[in-house]
Amino acid sequence: MTLNAGDAPLFEALIRHAHSGPAPFHVPGHKQRAAWSDEEAGRWYGRLLSLDVTELSDTDDLHHPEGPIAEAQRLAADCFGAEETRFLVGGSTVGNLAMILAVCRPGDLLLVQRNVHKSVIHGLMLAGGRAVFLPPETEPVSGLAVTPSAETVREALRRYPEAKALVLSNPNYYGLSVDLTEKVQAAHKRGIPVLVDEAHGAHFGQHPAFPRGALSCGADAVVQSAHKMLSALTMGAMLHLQGRLLDREAVRSQLRMLQSSSPSYPIMASLDLARREVHVRGAECFEQALQTAAWIREQAAGLPFALLQLPADAEAALDPLKLSLFDATGTLDGFRLRDELERQGCPAEMADDRYAVLALGTGTTRADGERLIAALQRLAPLAEPNGTAGRGRGSREASHREAPERPASPASPARAIPEPVSFSREAGRTEPVRLEEAAGRIAGEWVVPYPPGIPELFPGERIAPETVERLLHWRNRGARIQGAADATLRCVQVRTER
Amino acid sequence: MTLNAGDAPLFEALIRHAHSGPAPFHVPGHKQRAAWSDEEAGRWYGRLLSLDVTELSDTDDLHHPEGPIAEAQRLAADCFGAEETRFLVGGSTVGNLAMILAVCRPGDLLLVQRNVHKSVIHGLMLAGGRAVFLPPETEPVSGLAVTPSAETVREALRRYPEAKALVLSNPNYYGLSVDLTEKVQAAHKRGIPVLVDEAHGAHFGQHPAFPRGALSCGADAVVQSAHKMLSALTMGAMLHLQGRLLDREAVRSQLRMLQSSSPSYPIMASLDLARREVHVRGAECFEQALQTAAWIREQAAGLPFALLQLPADAEAALDPLKLSLFDATGTLDGFRLRDELERQGCPAEMADDRYAVLALGTGTTRADGERLIAALQRLAPLAEPNGTAGRGRGSREASHREAPERPASPASPARAIPEPVSFSREAGRTEPVRLEEAAGRIAGEWVVPYPPGIPELFPGERIAPETVERLLHWRNRGARIQGAADATLRCVQVRTER
Repeated sequence: MTLNAGDAPLFEALIRHAHSGPAPFHVPGHKQRAAWSDEEAGRWYGRLLSLDVTELSDTDDLHHPEGPIAEAQRLAADCFGAEETRFLVGGSTVGNLAMILAVCRPGDLLLVQRNVHKSVIHGLMLAGGRAVFLPPETEPVSGLAVTPSAETVREALRRYPEAKALVLSNPNYYGLSVDLTEKVQAAHKRGIPVLVDEAHGAHFGQHPAFPRGALSCGADAVVQSAHKMLSALTMGAMLHLQGRLLDREAVRSQLRMLQSSSPSYPIMASLDLARREVHVRGAECFEQALQTAAWIREQAAGLPFALLQLPADAEAALDPLKLSLFDATGTLDGFRLRDELERQGCPAEMADDRYAVLALGTGTTRADGERLIAALQRLAPLAEPNGTAGRGRGSREASHREAPERPASPASPARAIPEPVSFSREAGRTEPVRLEEAAGRIAGEWVVPYPPGIPELFPGERIAPETVERLLHWRNRGARIQGAADATLRCVQVRTER
Repeated sequence: MTLNAGDAPLFEALIRHAHSGPAPFHVPGHKQRAAWSDEEAGRWYGRLLSLDVTELSDTDDLHHPEGPIAEAQRLAADCFGAEETRFLVGGSTVGNLAMILAVCRPGDLLLVQRNVHKSVIHGLMLAGGRAVFLPPETEPVSGLAVTPSAETVREALRRYPEAKALVLSNPNYYGLSVDLTEKVQAAHKRGIPVLVDEAHGAHFGQHPAFPRGALSCGADAVVQSAHKMLSALTMGAMLHLQGRLLDREAVRSQLRMLQSSSPSYPIMASLDLARREVHVRGAECFEQALQTAAWIREQAAGLPFALLQLPADAEAALDPLKLSLFDATGTLDGFRLRDELERQGCPAEMADDRYAVLALGTGTTRADGERLIAALQRLAPLAEPNGTAGRGRGSREASHREAPERPASPASPARAIPEPVSFSREAGRTEPVRLEEAAGRIAGEWVVPYPPGIPELFPGERIAPETVERLLHWRNRGARIQGAADATLRCVQVRTER
């Protein structure tokens, strides 16, 4: 059977199944109906319930695909440039866990970019692996951490020839992306695979305005969230594989362990639909969001707010669908900006002390952009306490030069390659200490500002004074903290000293 | 703030958020709209997309709940009789993994019922634990495996005082359930927690017709699929906790590692709705399904098919919402029956060599029952090759006595308590051998007929001759096989002998 880009084999199989009008005697219990007495609930869930089925002869089996799921995965591999693609129903999280577990036996050493999503560290903990954390480069205009340099990667490969894989994360949460080719080649020269968390880059390479994707740079395993920038339901993600350096059966076997044995068909079918959209319409399906982004940039020029922008000769590229907004007058920090925008009906993706990050996507409309600009117009007086619009504009123009002066970025540690860290699932005995007194102690818990979900601390790591400073910053600015027993960060848990 | 059973705090928060009509600048990329050019797709996903949001100030955070998710979980704990309830978006799978990982450090020993879902074994593999597999009892009327006896549990506790937990699975896939109180008490006497996979029993204890639930028997951690028998979306499940024997923070910490950092709000809100339904309507929300089940039993009496039924004095209880249908004339096996029913528009939940198992649920209607009976009437001639209806009826009446003669059940190993098995994530080097020649070798892969998802073989287990016989049975009867490299089971992978 020939598959075409315009097919959506899994979605179509579910529709056919629903249209056949079966009397279901299988799970789920709702039997494809709104089985709630609250009719309101039924209206919101609606026909989607008809797609929420299980493994049947015509709906295939994610854990052993040979029908429409296998076909949908083959089409996805073709669309995104992989040799093999596996659908994920547990988000990029489960893809990161699976690819780490597939290469890392207990005690094995991986070279891991320090500023990774916590799920990468979770993978190391589950695997009982060791990691050498590679310090990332700081993109000079924004002051934001990107990936480690090729030099850092080569040096680490020289010092740790026993490393089993190189783990990178690109783009970062702000949409900053660097070309991975040289790093991938350095790892391949040593015969080890490169695993890339590309959660925020499922759209990369699909429009000339977007940066290059990790697969086209030669990465061996690439995890993409199809829900973050494309049109899949939340938790819909993909794991793309290519090359011969990775044991694909090991990856599949980890996925069989980690993913639900009753995966969600609406999520899987939404992956099929998100892929078809890109596959058939190509660059066109991003035009509306790109034009909205460009229009926002244009309109913002008359306001005391500015958007992170890189000069034409910058080494990093900026995803045009991520807008890092800041108050050019320096009055409102990113957290305040995010809160004010939410109050104005324009909730943002995340904030740090400087930026409120706005994520656009395939569903973004021009009307969204207009709402945002109207909101910023209403917020302008807050950013100009003296009503001096001129001051705002002046600062905005200077913003690129000012940006590097922002306090140490949440994710830019020192450059020297540190000693390996051993991971296990055990936290050991811990006790709380006041955050101000935590420097020098061994962390006994996670501290993860979310978003961006990049751990400031993980259990087993010695707490640096700079880290305490950054945590004080997060705490004072109202960041959402995951992992910590005390979410207000008055105290952190540290290992009890014997 | 006082919470009432009639509240659905999370669902209501999402509705309020949607009604506020925000201009979203956060993930997901579809921005709560059908961002597909295919309008058909939009119609199926519809308004559900408005609920597919992310962590915002009004939508809370599953990994650090303090708003509507925390409230929804508190209501769920109240409804299902737990001290603490955690929502799962990765199905019962992630609950089983988390509770095993929470109690089992590398090398630790657990007492584990042999006929468990593969996710329990996966938990042991991820944990690097050891297991003593407790042989289950065979329910005498059906010949089906249930839990180990209290005697077996006590003997195992005596022989392995170092055991960290007792892991049970109840009810089985056929709805057979036993009272766990005595086993729980035996474990508690030794100071160890009891973890129960109650995936198929979320409705237990909610209607006088249903068996008792594991929480009311004193179990410390209980995993329930709210999608299997209640009205949640697939992958919606709950982990219930009580007592002081289990380190709850360890459980939460494993869930933070294993669950997506972008959990699905439609799934979480459907847990809230499924709970509210039971909480408010109580027994009433199962009446329609129960009456349909009773009507099916009544009508089947005139047909050559029969339904598993236990005598009033049986030790095990039978979930009335699971109907194990068989051909009383012995002509059609369970697989054929399942296939014929699916052809007639009545897809069943699973089959074995005898039964086609039908799962009813909150969404089951009387019309479904009528469709089933009509289908069985059409299938009747297949079951009566000679048209001798009398023969059919005679056999049906004898069915209870005949049942034990069925070939060795897929899940009833010998009774003696075996030596511990050590688990790791590594399969080692393997080679294929013909299934007929596999007895005595060490399995190098999983072989999991799905459903029921109970492993016949897992890596590291010595292959018994009886296992080969059962696998030949599964193979010949058209079971769906997960895990095995050769899904047709011509060959199985075994460890290469050195």
